[in-house]
Amino acid sequence: MATSKPQENMLWGGRFTGGLDPLMVTYNESIHFDRTIYAQDIKGSIAYARANSKIGILTADEFAAIEKGFQQVLKEWESNTFEIKPGVDEDIHTANERRLGEIIGTGVAGKLHTGRSRNDQVATGMRLWLRDQLRLLDEHLTALLRTLSARAKAEISALMPGYTHLQRAQPIRWSHWLLSYGTAFANDLERLRQLIPRVNKSPLGAGALVGNPFGIDRAAIAKELGFDCLINNSMAAVADRDFVVETLQWASMLMTHISRWAEDLIIYSTAEFGFVRLADAYSTGSSLMPQKKNPDSLELLRGKSGRVFGTMCGLMMSVKGLPSTYNKDLQESWETMLDGVKTTSDSIQIATGVLSTLTIVPEKMRSALSPDMLATDLADYLVRKGVPFRETHHISGRVVALAESEGVPMDKLSLQQLQEVDARFGKDVMQCFSYEESINKRTVIGGTSEQSVLQQIQILENRNVKKQQFA
Amino acid sequence: MATSKPQENMLWGGRFTGGLDPLMVTYNESIHFDRTIYAQDIKGSIAYARANSKIGILTADEFAAIEKGFQQVLKEWESNTFEIKPGVDEDIHTANERRLGEIIGTGVAGKLHTGRSRNDQVATGMRLWLRDQLRLLDEHLTALLRTLSARAKAEISALMPGYTHLQRAQPIRWSHWLLSYGTAFANDLERLRQLIPRVNKSPLGAGALVGNPFGIDRAAIAKELGFDCLINNSMAAVADRDFVVETLQWASMLMTHISRWAEDLIIYSTAEFGFVRLADAYSTGSSLMPQKKNPDSLELLRGKSGRVFGTMCGLMMSVKGLPSTYNKDLQESWETMLDGVKTTSDSIQIATGVLSTLTIVPEKMRSALSPDMLATDLADYLVRKGVPFRETHHISGRVVALAESEGVPMDKLSLQQLQEVDARFGKDVMQCFSYEESINKRTVIGGTSEQSVLQQIQILENRNVKKQQFA
Amino acid sequence: MATSKPQENMLWGGRFTGGLDPLMVTYNESIHFDRTIYAQDIKGSIAYARANSKIGILTADEFAAIEKGFQQVLKEWESNTFEIKPGVDEDIHTANERRLGEIIGTGVAGKLHTGRSRNDQVATGMRLWLRDQLRLLDEHLTALLRTLSARAKAEISALMPGYTHLQRAQPIRWSHWLLSYGTAFANDLERLRQLIPRVNKSPLGAGALVGNPFGIDRAAIAKELGFDCLINNSMAAVADRDFVVETLQWASMLMTHISRWAEDLIIYSTAEFGFVRLADAYSTGSSLMPQKKNPDSLELLRGKSGRVFGTMCGLMMSVKGLPSTYNKDLQESWETMLDGVKTTSDSIQIATGVLSTLTIVPEKMRSALSPDMLATDLADYLVRKGVPFRETHHISGRVVALAESEGVPMDKLSLQQLQEVDARFGKDVMQCFSYEESINKRTVIGGTSEQSVLQQIQILENRNVKKQQFA
Amino acid sequence: MATSKPQENMLWGGRFTGGLDPLMVTYNESIHFDRTIYAQDIKGSIAYARANSKIGILTADEFAAIEKGFQQVLKEWESNTFEIKPGVDEDIHTANERRLGEIIGTGVAGKLHTGRSRNDQVATGMRLWLRDQLRLLDEHLTALLRTLSARAKAEISALMPGYTHLQRAQPIRWSHWLLSYGTAFANDLERLRQLIPRVNKSPLGAGALVGNPFGIDRAAIAKELGFDCLINNSMAAVADRDFVVETLQWASMLMTHISRWAEDLIIYSTAEFGFVRLADAYSTGSSLMPQKKNPDSLELLRGKSGRVFGTMCGLMMSVKGLPSTYNKDLQESWETMLDGVKTTSDSIQIATGVLSTLTIVPEKMRSALSPDMLATDLADYLVRKGVPFRETHHISGRVVALAESEGVPMDKLSLQQLQEVDARFGKDVMQCFSYEESINKRTVIGGTSEQSVLQQIQILENRNVKKQQFA
Repeated sequence: MATSKPQENMLWGGRFTGGLDPLMVTYNESIHFDRTIYAQDIKGSIAYARANSKIGILTADEFAAIEKGFQQVLKEWESNTFEIKPGVDEDIHTANERRLGEIIGTGVAGKLHTGRSRNDQVATGMRLWLRDQLRLLDEHLTALLRTLSARAKAEISALMPGYTHLQRAQPIRWSHWLLSYGTAFANDLERLRQLIPRVNKSPLGAGALVGNPFGIDRAAIAKELGFDCLINNSMAAVADRDFVVETLQWASMLMTHISRWAEDLIIYSTAEFGFVRLADAYSTGSSLMPQKKNPDSLELLRGKSGRVFGTMCGLMMSVKGLPSTYNKDLQESWETMLDGVKTTSDSIQIATGVLSTLTIVPEKMRSALSPDMLATDLADYLVRKGVPFRETHHISGRVVALAESEGVPMDKLSLQQLQEVDARFGKDVMQCFSYEESINKRTVIGGTSEQSVLQQIQILENRNVKKQQFA
Repeated sequence: MATSKPQENMLWGGRFTGGLDPLMVTYNESIHFDRTIYAQDIKGSIAYARANSKIGILTADEFAAIEKGFQQVLKEWESNTFEIKPGVDEDIHTANERRLGEIIGTGVAGKLHTGRSRNDQVATGMRLWLRDQLRLLDEHLTALLRTLSARAKAEISALMPGYTHLQRAQPIRWSHWLLSYGTAFANDLERLRQLIPRVNKSPLGAGALVGNPFGIDRAAIAKELGFDCLINNSMAAVADRDFVVETLQWASMLMTHISRWAEDLIIYSTAEFGFVRLADAYSTGSSLMPQKKNPDSLELLRGKSGRVFGTMCGLMMSVKGLPSTYNKDLQESWETMLDGVKTTSDSIQIATGVLSTLTIVPEKMRSALSPDMLATDLADYLVRKGVPFRETHHISGRVVALAESEGVPMDKLSLQQLQEVDARFGKDVMQCFSYEESINKRTVIGGTSEQSVLQQIQILENRNVKKQQFA
Repeated sequence: MATSKPQENMLWGGRFTGGLDPLMVTYNESIHFDRTIYAQDIKGSIAYARANSKIGILTADEFAAIEKGFQQVLKEWESNTFEIKPGVDEDIHTANERRLGEIIGTGVAGKLHTGRSRNDQVATGMRLWLRDQLRLLDEHLTALLRTLSARAKAEISALMPGYTHLQRAQPIRWSHWLLSYGTAFANDLERLRQLIPRVNKSPLGAGALVGNPFGIDRAAIAKELGFDCLINNSMAAVADRDFVVETLQWASMLMTHISRWAEDLIIYSTAEFGFVRLADAYSTGSSLMPQKKNPDSLELLRGKSGRVFGTMCGLMMSVKGLPSTYNKDLQESWETMLDGVKTTSDSIQIATGVLSTLTIVPEKMRSALSPDMLATDLADYLVRKGVPFRETHHISGRVVALAESEGVPMDKLSLQQLQEVDARFGKDVMQCFSYEESINKRTVIGGTSEQSVLQQIQILENRNVKKQQFA
Repeated sequence: MATSKPQENMLWGGRFTGGLDPLMVTYNESIHFDRTIYAQDIKGSIAYARANSKIGILTADEFAAIEKGFQQVLKEWESNTFEIKPGVDEDIHTANERRLGEIIGTGVAGKLHTGRSRNDQVATGMRLWLRDQLRLLDEHLTALLRTLSARAKAEISALMPGYTHLQRAQPIRWSHWLLSYGTAFANDLERLRQLIPRVNKSPLGAGALVGNPFGIDRAAIAKELGFDCLINNSMAAVADRDFVVETLQWASMLMTHISRWAEDLIIYSTAEFGFVRLADAYSTGSSLMPQKKNPDSLELLRGKSGRVFGTMCGLMMSVKGLPSTYNKDLQESWETMLDGVKTTSDSIQIATGVLSTLTIVPEKMRSALSPDMLATDLADYLVRKGVPFRETHHISGRVVALAESEGVPMDKLSLQQLQEVDARFGKDVMQCFSYEESINKRTVIGGTSEQSVLQQIQILENRNVKKQQFA
């Protein structure tokens, strides 16, 4: 296995005498993914340098040079003219400092890293980046909830079967179904807003593990970078990747909600159900079968819930059982973070797109309602006459069986037939066989009646807008 | 495959005509694990019955009979005299109601379930049970933090190597190491306290999926049962097992902290490190090797972090991609919940036991400190003389290399030898070679100096006691 | 935390002076689950003792006493009269030897463990038990395949829609669908038969980690116990739990097949599809809704695929990153093995029960076929006239669109209408609109024509019976 | 959300009238990763076209044009001049066919896809690519085993402590430790060689799901492409991603072996153990601490075992519970496959590099041996005098305790002191206190004696070279 000579400007350059295996170089380097945070790395370095200038590590002029130099580096990244030197710039930190040195000279640039370690530097950059991303996710999720709430209000009169075990159970409003997912997504939003402050803590000033020895003002740095607070213990500060794990746990749970929602819609868009039609923008055809219109968007959403779960599992296994502080294993937190966040962000937006463009087919929904779905209402009818529910449940079951054996829908049985099952059925029993009636009886909080559904919409909007804890 | 006749009192007894496969009976039934919540099921049924008595479904006498009957059922469970009828009592709900009927007659008992479904009933019982368990976990975790904090205060003068990459890095206080885990556990406690309110929500009154049709007062039931609030949407109420998933995610993360902590202690208790000695109570011997004393407790803790992770993974896979509302797949949330909570609860207590009884060996810790761990201090020495850090890092690296090639510890090099590496080394350089000096320079917030460590202890105790969000 | 005095007969009794935390006792002990292998432990001990008698560690009389004593212990287990002593019998090995000592005296019983460690003892018992279980799983899986193959043969004339993306794609035979799962299950069987020999290897004689010091004949022991071969390296022999991991990986994959199969059948048994009806034996009703018949068996199968996956994930995390040889973390392999194997075994049998008792509804299947599913056949018609497929695909797509806009099924368009789309359509085009024709054109190996399906059945039966590698 | 107009040459172009959401385009497209198999896609298309020319779908000239055209497309890929058209070339199949059409005209190119679907096409390409990769992995793994075996032979005389529970247990040879991992890696190789034939099966000719309608010769195509056999059932052929799942399960298990191996070496390379020194090529330094030399390569290996596990978990969750045949969720199998295979391949090679360049420090190994590690030999001494092992174990334990209380190593106790513990100790007992003696007593198969270790090396080499099933 061939080896290459070590680069002169490796951070630990003063000591090693051996060469590096080229495969090891690529296996080790992170520049191809950690460049994502070029801006955060620069921002963190400027704040750190400013703090060092306050305690005399840097003169005012040196700090000014560093700040100005970094502004140029930042521009190069933004204009896509930054040249990464392969085999030299192993990570974004090395790359940025290398370039700074070229611009302002290594005499001053060489003072930048004083008292700092890549351990606290990388954690700072990751947290800054993730905090910003999570705030974007808050916006995306809020948009999804708004869309959902708007449809629920607009289409409140569409009735459809509610299913349990994927068997027709009781009639519901389409809006009630929508809001069941609204509840889940609102919980996701609540969790996200609790998570962000745990991400948004400053590790900078922790050094490699023992803390900065020059008395740097950690709180001032944190304030400049918009952190909510410090991670106090310096060893925890450098070792902790819980902010990534928790993000991925959060994202995995959100994605299971999206997956369940997609599963419902995939089933509802089959020819057999036919309740909804996806917009062409979110469907694709078949390379072989000209008639096909496939709900690819929903299937991708469902499939990608596995992907995000995989990033969580992978990272949790990587961190499990490590000794404390920094171990290189933690580099695995990078790509899982980037992939998990991007996939989740895209997925929420796609879900919003699907939801805002699909068409419902109320007549198909309505025609899927069947009288046997009112068997509970029939049982409840006798309950209101004082018959114990356990008995009415059996009686209603016998009516269902009779309808089956007679080959007619339950609501087409004659009163006489009903009374042969149980004499307590009166003429008014036929009122049970109305879907609207059944739905409008569910006036309880959270029920499927119109007033209850409207109340739910109100609560959801309040949770969402006012960031209240519970609803 | 032989089948048995269906039991007369199956809840859906009025309709089925076929038999049941005996293996299917056991595959389906849940009484062997859901009996855990016998008390919560009874409590929930009483509250539900009381609410039904307010709206005329039950008379005052009927409610009184139900309440009294359930008190007897509860006593039978508590005195271990409740007889589960195999093949009949498929779950705790069926069992409790069957027994109630025997005591007060099925005429009244048969009214209990009016307007309720097992869907909202089971969710209520699980949430009540879990809420109580999580409050116990709060206590256990608080006890662990108290132990940790007490040791950190008492043993603040013990110095040891701080490791990164499991290589000696810089000198630290033993207490600083302890507090790095304290930070993680305090975060776990914070998360737990955010989780409990999401568990402690009432689904009761949601019915099977559409909501109670008799206008039951869901809020009153919730209040009686000590819930913080309602789950509004009735479909969400019955389908949601996120409260279990989130608990297991929380527990999995906590267990990775315990695992990392255990990993450190296992290494520190090797003959080669020798920093700590476990109490006999938490060690075991070997069946073959008489001299062995194995840290079984720590290894079990580390191993069981995998187990809890497995329950989370299993449940997440079970719920992923299900259609909405209740599907029988959700029964899998039971055993994962029970096993995950018990394992976590036991583990926190074992960790506390280990931590409160282990002995530290300060002289072994101290003797593991080596002068090369002060190489950063040597570099910092020149920094203070204005030399750029990148240069001082190289210089210090050359000193380390010189010491290695000379075969002496770095602090035994002569001033002349140091000056041959770099002329800027002065007589005062020898002050760098003090571990105490090195440690006490880390006065920054979160550093390893005595004052910083004492401050951390203070913050930890405040977080813990006052339930503050951040520290 | 209270502690109890150490038991006198703890295996490592000679050394410890401290007490044990009662919680630690239960956290550590394994008798409540490892008793499962009481017979294998005894069998292994007898074989081990016999080998020790050959090399003079035991006299012939001592061996005879041990063998006879163990036969009594075995009988006690089998007759359910073995009394486990709480707090004393921490595991099955301790329990069996304790009881042996009571029967034949500790003088001889105390010689049993010579040169052996629990490390090789436990691995032996687990492997013996698992080997036997996997052979049973082979039988269960074979039975499932036989059922599947029999139905495929008997119901070959039932036609139904084949779906991709859950959208109607092209007509297929019901048997073709069945056989698609037959392929997966046959692969599972092939993998199982490759796995068993890796489980069925003897670790006995490895001692704690370095190998037996008395020259015991490991091969003779292995032969007596029915092992295929030895694990050579003694450290590998005691540390390896790959045989459990691989079993759980195998089981997890099999369970995803069962889950996908169950998912299809759940959808096919909705009111909207209606292709199959589950036997009452594998369905359950609702506690609230009298009309419900829920496919609980299928949902449990689908849900339990998550459970088995969870055991795999949990164990893999537990073993990942451990140092070599035995660590107590490996105790976690026990319960994951027991639960994973039982769940899988039950699930295969339930799946067989479901499959052997469900009823198909061929007329519902047939009526779900729709002319647009023949759009590919229409494209193929023009292909046979020399039109490039890409063009025919577009033409056929326009026919589909025309039928949609006209509001008629594609096969009700007039020849003239078709020719307006493309003049190359001739009179014979109407032959395209036959589902049988479409199916019977798929004569390629593995196609859905009758002859191809019959050939597939033949191949499946051959794979299954003859244990051939490929089919 | 803005939408773009659909591209004219979308495969399903004839039907859709709506636009596409730009985010949906990128969410859906796979060209950025599936381009990896450009060569396999071309190879598969040529074989497919050849078969179509045999049954008259293509003329000989048309086939010749296609073959020649594809050779040019292939060259463009190889010379990195193939231009992917963003938004048009959504996947590698579309891209290759689009380019072919530009070269040879769409009249002929438009016939290529006749009777084929992307469903069978993509499965073919993935299997061809993966088969080749797995054969490379066989080579890499074989190289690792050869390195391991060579070191085991060369360094057989190095003695070191064997650990259980990370506590010193009994003396072993360094080579014995190496071979314990050799056993695991040889099992991995065996499994790999069983896996490859399951990957190397041809799905081509399955069409979208029902099988090719033109009587294509599937076996001939399979032969041309080097497949071992066909997947018979056409629905299984297009839906099956088990070949990826099984690969990732295999890789995950291998990676846990590498992780455990790395964990040992990380511990052995601490200052406290000091048994091995990593080559500089596989270590890195610290940006802050000049003296550090960190085993980054080993930590990356350990960390990446989590990553590969994550790909397996993610994919298994994605496929679990899908309905049968192709669903777009299966696209998730792509990136998990690519990432899992690359990570595993790199990791095996890095492990080989680390192992072939590290240096052992036999004197540090030797000095870590301590007399208490011979306590079992002391017990065995009395066993040979006829004392039951359980008794000798206690006696030896008392000797260990005596040595501890006297503060001397066990081998420095006087004969008199030993005899005070047990009178049966004779003068020859001192022979127990030799590490070599202890090691060389383990002559049993798989033991740590020299002859046993040499035999193990022989067996390992035989397994490896001759591809034997067991060893």
